[in-house]
Amino acid sequence: MDDRTRDHARTLVEWSARIEAGDNVVVEVGEGAHDLGVAVAEQLGEKGANLLATYRSPELQRAYLRAGDGAFDADPDYELALYERADSVLVLKGSNNTAGSADVSGDRRQAHSKARQAIREARLDTDWVSTQHPTRAMAQQAGMAYEAYRDFVYDATLRDWEALAEEQARLKDILDDGETVRIRNEGTDLTLDISGRRAVNSAASVAYDSHNLPSGEVFTAPADTAGVVTFDVPMTIQGRRVRDVKLTFKDGVVVDFEAEQGADVIQEVVETDGGSRRLGELGIGMNRGVDRVTDNILFDEKMGGTVHLALGRAYDACLPEGETGNDSAVHEDLITTMDEGSLLAVDGETVQEDGTFVWE
Amino acid sequence: MDDRTRDHARTLVEWSARIEAGDNVVVEVGEGAHDLGVAVAEQLGEKGANLLATYRSPELQRAYLRAGDGAFDADPDYELALYERADSVLVLKGSNNTAGSADVSGDRRQAHSKARQAIREARLDTDWVSTQHPTRAMAQQAGMAYEAYRDFVYDATLRDWEALAEEQARLKDILDDGETVRIRNEGTDLTLDISGRRAVNSAASVAYDSHNLPSGEVFTAPADTAGVVTFDVPMTIQGRRVRDVKLTFKDGVVVDFEAEQGADVIQEVVETDGGSRRLGELGIGMNRGVDRVTDNILFDEKMGGTVHLALGRAYDACLPEGETGNDSAVHEDLITTMDEGSLLAVDGETVQEDGTFVWE
Repeated sequence: MDDRTRDHARTLVEWSARIEAGDNVVVEVGEGAHDLGVAVAEQLGEKGANLLATYRSPELQRAYLRAGDGAFDADPDYELALYERADSVLVLKGSNNTAGSADVSGDRRQAHSKARQAIREARLDTDWVSTQHPTRAMAQQAGMAYEAYRDFVYDATLRDWEALAEEQARLKDILDDGETVRIRNEGTDLTLDISGRRAVNSAASVAYDSHNLPSGEVFTAPADTAGVVTFDVPMTIQGRRVRDVKLTFKDGVVVDFEAEQGADVIQEVVETDGGSRRLGELGIGMNRGVDRVTDNILFDEKMGGTVHLALGRAYDACLPEGETGNDSAVHEDLITTMDEGSLLAVDGETVQEDGTFVWE
Repeated sequence: MDDRTRDHARTLVEWSARIEAGDNVVVEVGEGAHDLGVAVAEQLGEKGANLLATYRSPELQRAYLRAGDGAFDADPDYELALYERADSVLVLKGSNNTAGSADVSGDRRQAHSKARQAIREARLDTDWVSTQHPTRAMAQQAGMAYEAYRDFVYDATLRDWEALAEEQARLKDILDDGETVRIRNEGTDLTLDISGRRAVNSAASVAYDSHNLPSGEVFTAPADTAGVVTFDVPMTIQGRRVRDVKLTFKDGVVVDFEAEQGADVIQEVVETDGGSRRLGELGIGMNRGVDRVTDNILFDEKMGGTVHLALGRAYDACLPEGETGNDSAVHEDLITTMDEGSLLAVDGETVQEDGTFVWE
């Protein structure tokens, strides 16, 4: 086993999920994540935690979803009982084919997803963490050789999380106290109102309300938006490519959009419902281990020197008690690069210039 | 996908486990049984049953068991709750390395096993079925090429089970009504008292109290045994090879034993406890699809033209209400070939001669 796989497992169990003796842990092992599964099992054994391994397979899921008539029992009690009694769910992604369930219709997916609302909520009520084992399929999606992709994943994942959490705390404080964020780069001049909103220091640990490994971002929920933003990072949204999306906001709402590629996808997203025309998230990437785009949102949005904005649903963690944020069935992230000539400022004070934070 | 994999899944779901719409099904997918898992998921989707896939991995288990201090929580409630609410457990064996957990100590295994007694009972209370996907590791253990091994597995598994169940019913009736079984072949002349005992028509279906696919045997629990038996089929018992074991019985108890290979293993088995010196099972193999020994008890003991006897525990299904059978911590099967010159008779009537049943 690659030593880094063992380090990955240790980081997941100790830093991210904070597993303790006696915890009931569900480990969801992806088709291609067997080696990470073995390393996680070893860590759980060392901790004296309980282990139940489930099998996360897009191919099984595809076969199951396509075979029936599209009707699914609501929240089968055996699975609900399992997750209601689980303390942690560790999701080890790692597909052998990222298009493995591409021919399941959206209707089927939605029908199944709707029938599992209570199970999903029970899972979200645990100390869940989602991570990814580097597979050849993921390397292929990134357009990278396997060895190089593994280096990339472990550089992004095996950080000094404690130090990054401290650095991110500075930005969180600035955003918590701030009222107006200004973002400027080539094709972007945007103003966001964040007064009264709470930023999340997303440091790859449940102790920081953060459920992704890697993480490395600070995010909040804007209340109002005006101006223009261009997202130069190419993305795959709902299986389709989008590139150079430009959105124009007035009074918090998208009033105009264009794209070099995938304008139809953006149109579908924007027209989903009332909330999908508004922003639910302003996220600032701070993970310097993510040094390139790999067409995987788990990594892309954490990249140091980028900012991402999401159309749609806001996270509750960003909203003070009693306040409701933007609501929508969608949450679609789009990313813009902060490099030469860019500026990120809060209440007129520069926070980041030319892609470098003032304290870096 | 090999068409036979789909047929295997259909046989498992329809004939063996009798899955119906709304059933809560746990599918335990072995490391090397992914393809069968996909085929089973498809069948469950067609039936409208619920699917939860767990991951059966000797490598995860090994890592977990070795890592800790050897103490395990008794029956973790999340896993117990899952199995208590499950209707069926489908175990899809199929290892990538049959020695994958060879270096876990017996003490560790036993400690973990003891801590999971209620979970094990909950699983046995479901309509569980154990089957096996042909992997290269299993082919290697059988000393066979992969393609040839797959043919072997599917020949053994994809039988006309309904017809075999009818044929086996004849033998069951004979054993149920009979009092004395006589077995004779080269090196064997054994008399077993089965009066009052009930035979099981093990036809690879929960509808027949049978939990193995393939099956294809009729078995009962002898009350008394006298004479000599030689087991010419080589076996692996507790990881060690045994060959040409010869047991001598008097008043139901082993009074002498020898073996060409592995006499020490037989000694350990016989000396385990009071019940391990007595027979718990007389089984008569009737699956003509199993035409060779593959060092896998799931197949070997079902081979048409063989008889197996087990030292140790008797199955409750063979005992009339209120009667207790032989009790022991072990149940070790040994197999003898019924070929040219052999005889199987019940109450003096010939049932099988030269390896062929009288009705064949």
